Amino acid sequence: MRHLISIEDLDREMLTTILDTTQQLLPIAERRIKSAPTLRGLVVCNLFLEDSTRTRISFDIAAKRLSAEVINFSGKGSSVSKGESFKDTALTLAAMGVDAVVVRSGSSGAPVQLANYLDVPVLNAGDGWHQHPTQALLDVFTMRQHLGQLDGRHLAVVGDVLHSRVARSLIQTAKLSGMEVTLVAPPTLLPASVENWGVRVARDLDAVLPEVDAVELLRVQRERMHRAFFPTTREYAAEWGLDARRLELLKPDAIVLHPGPMNRGVEISADVADADRAVITEQVTNGIAVRMACLYLMLAGRTEGDHRE
Amino acid sequence: MRHLISIEDLDREMLTTILDTTQQLLPIAERRIKSAPTLRGLVVCNLFLEDSTRTRISFDIAAKRLSAEVINFSGKGSSVSKGESFKDTALTLAAMGVDAVVVRSGSSGAPVQLANYLDVPVLNAGDGWHQHPTQALLDVFTMRQHLGQLDGRHLAVVGDVLHSRVARSLIQTAKLSGMEVTLVAPPTLLPASVENWGVRVARDLDAVLPEVDAVELLRVQRERMHRAFFPTTREYAAEWGLDARRLELLKPDAIVLHPGPMNRGVEISADVADADRAVITEQVTNGIAVRMACLYLMLAGRTEGDHRE
Amino acid sequence: MRHLISIEDLDREMLTTILDTTQQLLPIAERRIKSAPTLRGLVVCNLFLEDSTRTRISFDIAAKRLSAEVINFSGKGSSVSKGESFKDTALTLAAMGVDAVVVRSGSSGAPVQLANYLDVPVLNAGDGWHQHPTQALLDVFTMRQHLGQLDGRHLAVVGDVLHSRVARSLIQTAKLSGMEVTLVAPPTLLPASVENWGVRVARDLDAVLPEVDAVELLRVQRERMHRAFFPTTREYAAEWGLDARRLELLKPDAIVLHPGPMNRGVEISADVADADRAVITEQVTNGIAVRMACLYLMLAGRTEGDHRE
Repeated sequence: MRHLISIEDLDREMLTTILDTTQQLLPIAERRIKSAPTLRGLVVCNLFLEDSTRTRISFDIAAKRLSAEVINFSGKGSSVSKGESFKDTALTLAAMGVDAVVVRSGSSGAPVQLANYLDVPVLNAGDGWHQHPTQALLDVFTMRQHLGQLDGRHLAVVGDVLHSRVARSLIQTAKLSGMEVTLVAPPTLLPASVENWGVRVARDLDAVLPEVDAVELLRVQRERMHRAFFPTTREYAAEWGLDARRLELLKPDAIVLHPGPMNRGVEISADVADADRAVITEQVTNGIAVRMACLYLMLAGRTEGDHRE
Repeated sequence: MRHLISIEDLDREMLTTILDTTQQLLPIAERRIKSAPTLRGLVVCNLFLEDSTRTRISFDIAAKRLSAEVINFSGKGSSVSKGESFKDTALTLAAMGVDAVVVRSGSSGAPVQLANYLDVPVLNAGDGWHQHPTQALLDVFTMRQHLGQLDGRHLAVVGDVLHSRVARSLIQTAKLSGMEVTLVAPPTLLPASVENWGVRVARDLDAVLPEVDAVELLRVQRERMHRAFFPTTREYAAEWGLDARRLELLKPDAIVLHPGPMNRGVEISADVADADRAVITEQVTNGIAVRMACLYLMLAGRTEGDHRE
Repeated sequence: MRHLISIEDLDREMLTTILDTTQQLLPIAERRIKSAPTLRGLVVCNLFLEDSTRTRISFDIAAKRLSAEVINFSGKGSSVSKGESFKDTALTLAAMGVDAVVVRSGSSGAPVQLANYLDVPVLNAGDGWHQHPTQALLDVFTMRQHLGQLDGRHLAVVGDVLHSRVARSLIQTAKLSGMEVTLVAPPTLLPASVENWGVRVARDLDAVLPEVDAVELLRVQRERMHRAFFPTTREYAAEWGLDARRLELLKPDAIVLHPGPMNRGVEISADVADADRAVITEQVTNGIAVRMACLYLMLAGRTEGDHRE
């Protein structure tokens, strides 16, 4: 694994390797001293051209748990905002000798571009409406923890699929794991291309819930709320929100996921967010382990030859 | 000591423990290599939802001197600004496995809320108009250094008591140490509740100065200057500012404190700020040691069982 | 070497020491584990009162490669923005026990002021239109790598000399190295004082290029583009930009430098930016080593007495 740009680049064996490595690294978080010397002396650059606290901190902690140094490069006030081409930013990072770049960008395709210019691993931490692979990996890892073998299991993805890189990556990862996927969304929030995705599309959430093993609720993005995509947050909650009544429709062992940050009262009611079968905080914990696994798989070999220092 | 939210939670014995621990940790700052391995492998999260460079850096250096890792989570552009509930931010930090949270917030009560959701220690780095306990502890520590035993000593607190969390925490800590406290402030900048605080209130600074062993000048906050709280900065300086003439009214060994950042020429004249008996830079130095002591007392036990790694 | 404020403070011997030390530290970047324990336990404060990602990260990596801790203090939302005097910011940093301060400021002279208040080394990372010494040092180091002995060699500096602290520092460093310097610039972008600088001034870039061993292109700053300094970016490129045709006018072994970030298509064409003789990414790599050398020369003695810990 050279880069992690898109789930499309993974085959089933690579996916299994990532999930198994995550499983092996998970216990580090339960130690009192939560770190391993694996990547000591390496520098990971967090190139966040779009705001993101949760994902940035998750990668930050992941890198530090493996004893790497972290350099934060944010977009505002940076050379990027001074008109530097993305190519030159990439060449600068390469010249500075960073060992990996974690990139978040509002532009779909920025991580691919970066990988073209860099010899070191590039990890996509979310690009435009395109992909958010580590989020999908942590979702699937969390489902595997609860449901075991995922072949033939059934996932519902509910909400704003159109603007969601999380949905795009998750659907591909779930299918690669052998899961069936049903999308439940307002027609205005489904992309035209959905017909070719190999998924079922439904409109009635009540009808779908009894059939699925897991349901991932997509975040309603505030900036969409004021547009013509759906009437009001109240109507959204009534049609596509998961509340206590709907939770009862799920199979007894089905789980509820959310990529966070949640809008309590919109796509998820407060009592569902706090319910036992909502595994949302486990997703956060697993997110660090998944990112440790990705960094480990891409970087561990690089330090082998020179562990003496 | 589980959390440090408010001075009200402390008894005299706990206060003494904190001040004695501070005294023990102070020499680390005089070493050339200013660090100890005490909290190695632990992660302290600086959750600063309100701007603060000085306090954040002080906690940052304190944590690093004890070899902890520091994760910075600021409010802007974060999940908090995206509408996430404070509860979910807390649950996310818990799920990420941070070992302590230092929180600064514009909302009084935010640290208490956080502590309700977290199993790990919460340290209040200032919340609204409520409390700023580490500032008060460093002030009292600095007074103890100069004045020795504080029982029966007399502290004047001068300025905007109404909007000052520093004043609130300091008055409680000084009283817990056995000090008498006199407030000197424009009537518009005194809270109605002051009658129940067990302090004396005076209006004439010149009359108070000869009686006290220490005087803490509160910062005049720029945003208040444009309101109706007092006429002009010039008149403020004339009535409540400490200048060279007033400095002469103090007892020979009395000291002058300021929580910083100072407005030279407003609450303190430039020559007083630079005078020998102004202990303002010592307060800064002691601030790091006080924060090291608080982190140490709340976290040191956590690493004991697993020092092998 | 106590501080690094201005190239004017250096003599030729000090310059040679810095460049030779840079040469010695350069191989650390080629190790897989790119760090040395030299400055372990020391704290470097990056006081960036003006935005700068590249220079800040370069100093950040330099400090971490020598195992120092880095504290970031940025201007926005800080005590500086709350009206604190620069003197008090300096005294606060001193009281916090930082071991060195790297300062970037929009005000010429801020680093000198800081050095007046601090006992610890101050490194100027760019102040107003005044100086940017580490940039000049990395430029001259890069020229020495390619051209060998610099005495009698000839450097052209092209573009906005008026507003460029890079130009000011570079001209002094090049002359200290024994180089001849020719400035090529629109008359509106030359300072009146240029007559006393001991450099040649030319207007015709085509005539200068065949004579020089190195050419440094200054960045056209966006904020100037909208003013009356030059007609349009297109005309700027035509008169003072380095393109493929002009590259051919250079001697076979002459090199092209740019301090970055580049405006491709304005002061440098895209093909020149990517040409073999453009040493721009080497400048970035060398920049880290130069900053390591400066930190090392100013700080290494400080840890000697206490390496046991």
